[in-house]
Amino acid sequence: MEVENIGEMKKIVVAVDESEESMYALSWCLNNVVSVSHQNSVSPTLVLLYVKPSPPANYSAFDVAGYLFGNDVVADLEDYSRKLVDSVMSKAQEVCMKSNIDIKVEKKVGSGDAKNVICGTVEKLGADMLVMGSHGYGFLKRTLLGSVSYDCAKRVKCPMVVVKHPRNVL
Amino acid sequence: MEVENIGEMKKIVVAVDESEESMYALSWCLNNVVSVSHQNSVSPTLVLLYVKPSPPANYSAFDVAGYLFGNDVVADLEDYSRKLVDSVMSKAQEVCMKSNIDIKVEKKVGSGDAKNVICGTVEKLGADMLVMGSHGYGFLKRTLLGSVSYDCAKRVKCPMVVVKHPRNVL
Repeated sequence: MEVENIGEMKKIVVAVDESEESMYALSWCLNNVVSVSHQNSVSPTLVLLYVKPSPPANYSAFDVAGYLFGNDVVADLEDYSRKLVDSVMSKAQEVCMKSNIDIKVEKKVGSGDAKNVICGTVEKLGADMLVMGSHGYGFLKRTLLGSVSYDCAKRVKCPMVVVKHPRNVL
Repeated sequence: MEVENIGEMKKIVVAVDESEESMYALSWCLNNVVSVSHQNSVSPTLVLLYVKPSPPANYSAFDVAGYLFGNDVVADLEDYSRKLVDSVMSKAQEVCMKSNIDIKVEKKVGSGDAKNVICGTVEKLGADMLVMGSHGYGFLKRTLLGSVSYDCAKRVKCPMVVVKHPRNVL
């Protein structure tokens, strides 16, 4: 086999969510990938990707008992979702700033099935690396499943780093 | 959450096997992790880990029809196994040399269930990163399962990079 000369990393996608572990993964990436690349005159762009659940998957106009949610409830949920996005992105931005690394950061917010959105975004951007925490992606039931990162590892074409928070190791 | 100051990578384990993809993963690691760390005055030790199947799991003294294998057959298999180890390690060493990076390389050969040996070695060494190809680990039936890397991603405590050979992307 010819050893291929693999290019330097130009675009790194970090999937962030509400979990402490995803912020740890971002921090790990900044300290161990971005910082060394940066000091090596390579300045990758860091894409912070947050996927919010699409409304139909998490709440519909009908609740479990078949009653129609009032518009006020739906509005509240949408408002909550917006605040969640802002909160996660602010936290991620704070982690980036604390790293004291002068990097280009892009923020992207997707909606829908996390693994589909993450893998689709990575492919669309032609990313050189995907970084995410090992446990679940996101809020509600997604946290309990903990399989999004493994699904992504199977599907994504670029190298993927799965980072585990020390508190979550078995 | 306090952003933790994560240390530099000192020990990187790369699980190698007979597959082209594992050599690609090694090459990726050299080009994208070791090289930048090295130029950043950090010189990690690269541990090349090969796990050979333990004899009882792949051939026993009895074949499928219940006949005892002759000692000559068992000896042939053991000889083949030794040659396989040498071949994989030589190839991996060649990939390292071609990278023109002056790194410290250690070779380790384990025996048994790949995921157990890989995760156990990573833990025992206190490795800072595990790198392996996405498709299967190793020869024979292990190649077809393709799940060792995902099992390791679930179990290993340190960050793990799953690298896919461009030819293997879906």
